[in-house]
Amino acid sequence: MSRPLVLRDTRFGGLPLEELQERARRVRLLLSDCDGVLTDGTVYVSEHGEALKRFSLRDGMGVELLRLAGIETAIVTRERSAIVARRAEKLGLAVFDGVQDKAAALPQLVAATGCERHELAYIGDDVNDLGIIAELGKLGLTAAPFDAATPVARVVHHLCRAGGGEGAFREFADWILRLRAGGTEKDRTKGGRA
Amino acid sequence: MSRPLVLRDTRFGGLPLEELQERARRVRLLLSDCDGVLTDGTVYVSEHGEALKRFSLRDGMGVELLRLAGIETAIVTRERSAIVARRAEKLGLAVFDGVQDKAAALPQLVAATGCERHELAYIGDDVNDLGIIAELGKLGLTAAPFDAATPVARVVHHLCRAGGGEGAFREFADWILRLRAGGTEKDRTKGGRA
Amino acid sequence: MSRPLVLRDTRFGGLPLEELQERARRVRLLLSDCDGVLTDGTVYVSEHGEALKRFSLRDGMGVELLRLAGIETAIVTRERSAIVARRAEKLGLAVFDGVQDKAAALPQLVAATGCERHELAYIGDDVNDLGIIAELGKLGLTAAPFDAATPVARVVHHLCRAGGGEGAFREFADWILRLRAGGTEKDRTKGGRA
Amino acid sequence: MSRPLVLRDTRFGGLPLEELQERARRVRLLLSDCDGVLTDGTVYVSEHGEALKRFSLRDGMGVELLRLAGIETAIVTRERSAIVARRAEKLGLAVFDGVQDKAAALPQLVAATGCERHELAYIGDDVNDLGIIAELGKLGLTAAPFDAATPVARVVHHLCRAGGGEGAFREFADWILRLRAGGTEKDRTKGGRA
Repeated sequence: MSRPLVLRDTRFGGLPLEELQERARRVRLLLSDCDGVLTDGTVYVSEHGEALKRFSLRDGMGVELLRLAGIETAIVTRERSAIVARRAEKLGLAVFDGVQDKAAALPQLVAATGCERHELAYIGDDVNDLGIIAELGKLGLTAAPFDAATPVARVVHHLCRAGGGEGAFREFADWILRLRAGGTEKDRTKGGRA
Repeated sequence: MSRPLVLRDTRFGGLPLEELQERARRVRLLLSDCDGVLTDGTVYVSEHGEALKRFSLRDGMGVELLRLAGIETAIVTRERSAIVARRAEKLGLAVFDGVQDKAAALPQLVAATGCERHELAYIGDDVNDLGIIAELGKLGLTAAPFDAATPVARVVHHLCRAGGGEGAFREFADWILRLRAGGTEKDRTKGGRA
Repeated sequence: MSRPLVLRDTRFGGLPLEELQERARRVRLLLSDCDGVLTDGTVYVSEHGEALKRFSLRDGMGVELLRLAGIETAIVTRERSAIVARRAEKLGLAVFDGVQDKAAALPQLVAATGCERHELAYIGDDVNDLGIIAELGKLGLTAAPFDAATPVARVVHHLCRAGGGEGAFREFADWILRLRAGGTEKDRTKGGRA
Repeated sequence: MSRPLVLRDTRFGGLPLEELQERARRVRLLLSDCDGVLTDGTVYVSEHGEALKRFSLRDGMGVELLRLAGIETAIVTRERSAIVARRAEKLGLAVFDGVQDKAAALPQLVAATGCERHELAYIGDDVNDLGIIAELGKLGLTAAPFDAATPVARVVHHLCRAGGGEGAFREFADWILRLRAGGTEKDRTKGGRA
C-alpha cells in the first residue's frame, strides 16, 4: 500500500516531548503485530501452503537492545502460524496468536504479562490494529511502519521511516531508547513524528 | 517493467465520478489475475521446479473487507499451479485456472459464478489481460498494478499506486469500497486515476 | 550495484535508428545470461546449498512474444545449476551452462544453434559478459539490465530501465519487437538508449 | 533502517587519497560481516526455523576479483548458521562464526589468518560492528552498506551506495581495487566517501 502523503489526525499528534519521554521511560513491554511489522506482510506459499515468512535480523538486534534496557517484547497476532512460533522462540519472545480482536484481548494481555496498560507500547500496520492502538495510545506509545494502511499511519505517535520487515520494529525500539535517554529533539527536527 | 510515465488512452479515461460510484455499487464479484497482481509476477524455482510464490496478507485483508461488503473474489489465471490453489483455499476463493483466453471464457465465468458482466470487476497486469479488460471495462470496473505492462496501464479505470504483490489488489478493493461509500473525490484530487 | 549515472562509451553508442531496426529484423536467437538478467543476481541458500532462484513470469511472456515473432531464446551461463535447467525446461529454452569464456564459446554456440553471429542478440550484466557483448555488438544487438555493472552498462545498445529479474529481459524483447515493427522513435524521445 | 542523510563523524573522515591508496595496496584480507552485508539482513523462516538466506552472485564475483588481486575474503559473524557455512564453502571462504565480540577476537583472527592488522579491511552494518570498525579503521580500510545503522554509517571510510545483499560487498571490493590502481579521484567527484 503506497502512501506518499499522510495527514496526521490532530486528535492524536502533538504530544509534548516531555510526555513522550515520560511514556518511554515507563514502557516495560513492547507488543508487536507480526505480519506487516516484523515481516513485510507477505508469505511465501508452496504447494503445501504457507512455507516461509521473512524476518529482519536488525529487528532481532532491536529486541536485544530493548532487553538490555529492561523492556521485553511480545508478539500479538491474529494468525496462528508455526513459522511465527519458530521466530519468537529464536528471539525468546512470548506469542499471543489467534487474537481476533486485540483491543478486547487487552485485559487478558495485561493479566498474562503482569504489565499495566501505561507500561505497554504497540506497533501495528493494518486496520485491525486500530482498536488496540487507540486504547494503548492513551497512556502508552504507538507506532506503525512506513507502509502501514493510511488510517493506522495517521493515528500513531511514531510513523517509522522504515517499512514492515525492513527495520520498522528496530526503528521504534531505537526511538523509545533515545526518548528514555532524553533525546529525540533531533527526531522532531529531522521530521520524526514525535 | 519500469514505467515512469503513462499517458492514458482517452477512449477509456474520463468516466464521471457518479458513473464510477454506480459501477462500484453493483459489483458482486472481483475477478483477479494471479501472477503480477496477487504476486509481483515472479516465481521461486528450486531444482524440482516452481517451489514458491509470494502473496500479500494485506491483499488477504482486502478479500475480507470486500466480503463484508458482499463482494466475492475469484482468481482467473492462465497458469495451473498447486501453489495458487493453496493460497485460494486459505482465502476461500474460487480459482479458474488454465484459462488461455480470458475474454473468450467470460460466458463460462458468468455461468459458473451466477454474476452478470456488469457485476464484475477485474484487475490484471499483462497483455493477455487486455481482452477481458476491454470487455469488462464497458460496464464494470478495471484496474492494474503500478508495474503493469504499459498497454494495460493505459486502459484501466484505476491504475494502482501499489505494485503487484505489494498491495495493488488491496488498493483496488479499498477504492471500490470508498466509491460505494460515495467517496473518492479525494482520489481525484490526490492523483487517483478515476 | 547502484549506478545512478552512466556515461556511454561513445565507441558503442549512436547507431542510427535504421541500423538498429535492420539488426532487429535479422535477429533469430536471443542469448541471455541467467544470473543478474533473468534473476536479480541473488540465490537463496539453505543448509543444503543453493535452494532457490527467483524468475519473472513477465520475462516468460517475453520469451513467448519473441517466439511468436520467430525469435528463439537460449541461456548462456557460467554456472551449472539444476534450478536454471528447470526454469529453461518450463520455457522450452536451450541452456549452454558452465561456459567460462562466452566470447570464446561463440563458434560452438553458432554451430550448435545454426544461427550466424549477425542473427544473435545478447543481454548480460557483469564484467564476464564484456567479451561476448563486444563481439556480438558488432553486428547484432546487445542490452543490459539497469543494475548491470558499470562497464557493461556503458557499452550495450539498450540499457534497460528495468533491473535484472524485474523485467529487463522482457523490456529487451519488447524493444526488439518494436524496432522490427519500425518503431522506437519514441524510445529515443523518452530516453531509451538506442 | 532508512537513513536519508548521514553526517560523517569528522574524527574518521577526511583521509587523503594517497593514504587510502596506500592502505588499499597493503590489504591482504577482507573481513566481512554476513547478515546485513552479504545479505539484506533478513532470514526466511519456515516451521522448522531459519530456512534460507539470500546472497548476491555479484558479491561472489567480487570475491573472485579480489582473489585475482591477491586479496582473500573471510566471514566474521556473531551467528552460527549452516546456511552461511554452505555459502562460504561455495566461494571458498573461511568463516569465523559465533564471534560475540569481534574487536576482542582480533588477536585470534590475526593469528588464524596470518595477516597483520594493517593488512585487514572490514565491512559491517550494525552496532555490534562498531568495535572492530574502530580498531581496523586506524590502519586498514572500513566500509558499510548504504542501509547500515547510522552510528556505523558515520564512521566508515566508504559508505556504499548499495545496500546489504545488493552489492555492497562488491562495491567495497571494486573500490579497493580501483584505489590500488591509483584511482577514485572520480569517487571523490561523484560523491564517493573517500
